Amino acid sequence: MKRVKLIVAYDGTNYHGWQVQPNGETIEGVLNRTLSSLLGEKIIVTGASRTDAGVHSMGNVAVFDTKSRIPAEKISYALNQRLPEDIVVQKSEEVPAAFHPRHCDSRKTYEYRILNREFPLPMYRNNTYFCYRKLDLEKMQQAAEYLRGEHDFKSFCAAAAVVETTVRTIYELTVSRQEDIITIRVTGNGFLYNMVRIIAGTLLQAGMGMIEPEEIKTILAAKERSAAGPTAPAQGLTMIGIEYL
Amino acid sequence: MKRVKLIVAYDGTNYHGWQVQPNGETIEGVLNRTLSSLLGEKIIVTGASRTDAGVHSMGNVAVFDTKSRIPAEKISYALNQRLPEDIVVQKSEEVPAAFHPRHCDSRKTYEYRILNREFPLPMYRNNTYFCYRKLDLEKMQQAAEYLRGEHDFKSFCAAAAVVETTVRTIYELTVSRQEDIITIRVTGNGFLYNMVRIIAGTLLQAGMGMIEPEEIKTILAAKERSAAGPTAPAQGLTMIGIEYL
Repeated sequence: MKRVKLIVAYDGTNYHGWQVQPNGETIEGVLNRTLSSLLGEKIIVTGASRTDAGVHSMGNVAVFDTKSRIPAEKISYALNQRLPEDIVVQKSEEVPAAFHPRHCDSRKTYEYRILNREFPLPMYRNNTYFCYRKLDLEKMQQAAEYLRGEHDFKSFCAAAAVVETTVRTIYELTVSRQEDIITIRVTGNGFLYNMVRIIAGTLLQAGMGMIEPEEIKTILAAKERSAAGPTAPAQGLTMIGIEYL
Repeated sequence: MKRVKLIVAYDGTNYHGWQVQPNGETIEGVLNRTLSSLLGEKIIVTGASRTDAGVHSMGNVAVFDTKSRIPAEKISYALNQRLPEDIVVQKSEEVPAAFHPRHCDSRKTYEYRILNREFPLPMYRNNTYFCYRKLDLEKMQQAAEYLRGEHDFKSFCAAAAVVETTVRTIYELTVSRQEDIITIRVTGNGFLYNMVRIIAGTLLQAGMGMIEPEEIKTILAAKERSAAGPTAPAQGLTMIGIEYL
């Protein structure tokens, strides 16, 4: 028996998110089915980031246990031949049996991309959030500064989520523009449910002048979901990668 | 009667190219139908670049004549409300009746994008050509230099095409890399059928070491389609924009 770690990239447009659910195809479901048929045993993967419907990935992580004698690093090639073209495994490797993609310490990186111009561009419709109101990049950058570091991010957590603690550390949070695309890139030791999308929705408000950058302090202090901005739409979000420490 | 110019962006993935044809939906077909229903008269657009199936656009140009009293610059807004989400008009404006998108002097710019890494990334599958063989950027740049300027591009024209002259001028041709994406950007006074895709296919051969950069000279001199590289796949190509002189 060995434990295999996969790095999984996907276009989330046509999936009901990562996690298996009764009505609708999911990334996890496709991986379980494809791996089971490839390896000839029942495989159930465990994912690191259980991304929502419409969210994309360049480097999500999943592990599974197998009795197969196929070398772990060859599994990616065999798997990609059977996966649909919107899911591509970037790497497969053996890891210690104690490795768990969610319980081991890690730094996760996400990007939220906004297309900021007068009219949308069709090529970007599934992987950016379109905003025609001119965004003030500097204000977004100033607002982002208040979010860096360790904070109680309760205001940036979907109200229904049940978690032990809402304290998280954001190591890096940058807002940059390249032509018409504004990218919010955030690295942290973990993220609450919808946290990156709520951060994006709040930075969007700062960019539109609806809130002042300093107000982020008040929003954090409120520890109340309603204090922060709206949850920005899923299609702008991409799981970039996870570094295990 | 007035002549209206449209700047049209589209994701060409789901279309059989620009030009109306009996079997399959086209960009031109959708524009004709949508404009006719919006303006209440039969509209037939004339396009600048009759892009192939799977080719994309950020700035193709089309014109049409209308009796409508809707101000030309408002047509884009009304039209976008009725167009599918993979076609978005970026601008509409009145132009002189003598303006013709193909017969007036212009500088056209195209980009050909290559995703160069070990495994494909699903988000890029429809707007890049995936190449896992490591490409030598410098060799591609060196090869590109030989194509700049005025040349007889007969070797870079699809064999079946019938044209008066195969002489064209390339004003700019750059090859750049950003992370895993190599972008070939070319601006010229006009392009022969498949010319940009054949240039891309030939620069790819230079990047893979299958030809030496200097061989471009021999390829141009041959005036024979078979001398150049293959026609690179459609999905990597995007019509960027057209500047009328």
